[in-house]
Amino acid sequence: MRKIVKNLDSVFQPKSVAIVGASTTSNKIGNVLMKNFLDARFKGEVYPVNPKHDEVMGKRCYAKVSDIPKRADLVIIATPAETVPDIVDDCAKKKVGGIIILSGGFEEVGRNDLALKIKATCEKNDIPLVGPNCLGIYDPYTKVDSIFLPRYKLERPKAGGIAFISQSGAVGSAVMDLAAYYGLGISKFISYGNSTVLNESDYLDYLAQDDETDAIILYIEGAKDGRKLLEAMKKTNKVKPIIALKAGKGLGGQAAARSHTGNIAGSYMAYKAAFKQAKVTEAEGISELFDFVKIYNQPIPKGNRVGIITNGGGMGVLTADYIEDSDLALAKFSPETTKELAKIIPSYGNVANPLDLVADAGVEGYTKSIDAMMSDPGIDALVIVVLLQTPPIDERVIHVLATAADSRKKPFVTISVGGAYTEAYRKIMESKGIPSYDSPRAAVKALEKFVTYSKYCREIGKG
Amino acid sequence: MRKIVKNLDSVFQPKSVAIVGASTTSNKIGNVLMKNFLDARFKGEVYPVNPKHDEVMGKRCYAKVSDIPKRADLVIIATPAETVPDIVDDCAKKKVGGIIILSGGFEEVGRNDLALKIKATCEKNDIPLVGPNCLGIYDPYTKVDSIFLPRYKLERPKAGGIAFISQSGAVGSAVMDLAAYYGLGISKFISYGNSTVLNESDYLDYLAQDDETDAIILYIEGAKDGRKLLEAMKKTNKVKPIIALKAGKGLGGQAAARSHTGNIAGSYMAYKAAFKQAKVTEAEGISELFDFVKIYNQPIPKGNRVGIITNGGGMGVLTADYIEDSDLALAKFSPETTKELAKIIPSYGNVANPLDLVADAGVEGYTKSIDAMMSDPGIDALVIVVLLQTPPIDERVIHVLATAADSRKKPFVTISVGGAYTEAYRKIMESKGIPSYDSPRAAVKALEKFVTYSKYCREIGKG
Repeated sequence: MRKIVKNLDSVFQPKSVAIVGASTTSNKIGNVLMKNFLDARFKGEVYPVNPKHDEVMGKRCYAKVSDIPKRADLVIIATPAETVPDIVDDCAKKKVGGIIILSGGFEEVGRNDLALKIKATCEKNDIPLVGPNCLGIYDPYTKVDSIFLPRYKLERPKAGGIAFISQSGAVGSAVMDLAAYYGLGISKFISYGNSTVLNESDYLDYLAQDDETDAIILYIEGAKDGRKLLEAMKKTNKVKPIIALKAGKGLGGQAAARSHTGNIAGSYMAYKAAFKQAKVTEAEGISELFDFVKIYNQPIPKGNRVGIITNGGGMGVLTADYIEDSDLALAKFSPETTKELAKIIPSYGNVANPLDLVADAGVEGYTKSIDAMMSDPGIDALVIVVLLQTPPIDERVIHVLATAADSRKKPFVTISVGGAYTEAYRKIMESKGIPSYDSPRAAVKALEKFVTYSKYCREIGKG
Repeated sequence: MRKIVKNLDSVFQPKSVAIVGASTTSNKIGNVLMKNFLDARFKGEVYPVNPKHDEVMGKRCYAKVSDIPKRADLVIIATPAETVPDIVDDCAKKKVGGIIILSGGFEEVGRNDLALKIKATCEKNDIPLVGPNCLGIYDPYTKVDSIFLPRYKLERPKAGGIAFISQSGAVGSAVMDLAAYYGLGISKFISYGNSTVLNESDYLDYLAQDDETDAIILYIEGAKDGRKLLEAMKKTNKVKPIIALKAGKGLGGQAAARSHTGNIAGSYMAYKAAFKQAKVTEAEGISELFDFVKIYNQPIPKGNRVGIITNGGGMGVLTADYIEDSDLALAKFSPETTKELAKIIPSYGNVANPLDLVADAGVEGYTKSIDAMMSDPGIDALVIVVLLQTPPIDERVIHVLATAADSRKKPFVTISVGGAYTEAYRKIMESKGIPSYDSPRAAVKALEKFVTYSKYCREIGKG
């Protein structure tokens, strides 16, 4: 790994942070940043930097980074583009550990001159630089948070295993907000904008070795070096699954990408081929990024044969449709399983896959059918539809699902569709590590992607 | 229209309702049904029927329907299948207006004998029958509610213009719950199960003439008479848009459908061809039913040229991608529009489609860019991305969107992706008639379907 990439530790685990452009005015970026660190009880030192102030939020404020008596590990810059090259020079003099530039006004508006100056300084001094023109990073473990969107509008997710690399701040922050909403934990969030010094390949290299990270989401508009990205994806995806969304597919989207982060979006076909070659899971939309990643902590299945349990017939029919339209297959129950299942369905019901427990089903139907299918060697994974609106369904069913998840015998996904009551339970399920989906299609697609990646894992001797 | 279909008025607007199987035990179906009518303050008479009780919830209880002194307009039956034919005979004697049979145990488990008896009695006496093996109906205008899922688990939507015909109770009730969650109003909900007497074609005929209904969602597993369905769809879709989801597409799904509602699911290709011929909008999943229908109250666009406004660059790129991959086109701004837009974007920004107002955008950026695009004759529809997490965005932007919706100049959809804060505002937007989507893909797909249907409307001289 390049030295400058290794140095990213200074960005994610700094002992001290300088905020250039620190402000006393509420809702200004330099003010939100100060609050991020102080409110989240960041354990290190926080140094506001702004020649206009002597003090910001009770902290001594410095005119320049080089005026800070100690060396700052991480410097976050949120001042106009023209001022940035000199600030970076000053940082280099002081040998800071890493820099995040949030400000826009560089390559994306044709100011490559400013970008080149910064690049030269950072590369010469091995200073890792995130940005410019980005939201920077959020690390729930170390409480580094350069996201300048107020916390009451954008919840921060709890600590967990999902890393998120996003060229777009908007897409990244929206997905992070969703992750917080559903109680999914993240390891690191990186919005990297113009990728003037470090780019997606560097972040992948770094995250491949990061102990907190189990799976990686990648939103990319245009890579600086396609060959390098392919290599980084190949290497990383062997260790941790990557789920990627490429934006800027058509000509209009590519033009938009260029004026967004100043990168050439390039041919989508080339990216598609690279994803395929690296066995990276490709998402077609934002919600899929989210749908796909939350299944990756499940046990690796041995094959693609799926058993379906439902308490609503129509949902079973739809689920079977999506499975037949995918690389998954409807499992055939063993004679033992069929015998067990016959005991739990109503007298007028049929033992079939999907298994329709009908709306009268309560906790026992779920316990026994899950047990039977988990023990059947002809079933590799389960899709469990739980419509929470029926009278007999309550929190005991959630407990059954949580127990099944904890047993780590076979992977499964759950489907619950509904309004406020259902959504409340879906959040509880997610927080208990039960992958919950709001539609049969989303659930089946996620399971299909996971089974495909699992096949790759088995091929390379993992799982 | 068949006499038996016209008689459906007795089902949707009954002056009195008899509930056969009324129960005093909480959470039993016959108890939930009683509560539905009493809690919702149904304006007519409610007669509990059950030979085991003299009184249910303070109401005199009768042993048989024919024991009720007055004639009941609507009879809802929730007793075991074997008992149903005699009860239907008794209803016919008393010349009731209509019947809903909720009980299962008929065609779907091979008891065609029971179904045929009921069918003969109802058809001979012109009694409209909904079901059996269904949830029956919910009408928010008249408060008829045979949905036996408790209200605290399944919210009932408010009164509005969307009718929902669903062969599956589970799918139907889940979508209804979602409609309530997002504040969408419905006109009638019909879960029709085995369609022993009345089927989807009859309900389409009825709804085509229903004043409260503006658009129709249809979830279908298997039609009894494909030719009749095609004719009913053709006729109805000219008057009101139909959005249809066909389930039971593959062999496994078809087998599941058969044991679910006792109907032959039939070849999916035949259904697909019928939807195409009738110009019915086809949905591929539950969420699409919902996504597509909520745009149909928008003004009919003149063409397919779309202007995009965004305060997050990446979301603009993704939106442009989906548009270029659809039957929609990215609009070219007129010189006047370009001039107007140049005034509102930051100095370093570019006037382009998508128009990136950047994260600094506040209410003024939206007001002016929406005005400019609404006045540009080269733009037929708008996609407006509003990321609610940025500091300057607040309820004033919602007001601007609501005003644009009220102006009814051009159709538009909005996209807001995020957690609790964003979801709260999305619900407010929906309740104000602003179609709100949680992903660029869903929004673009809905707009595409609407533009396609609008073209058909113009062809047949509507709009």
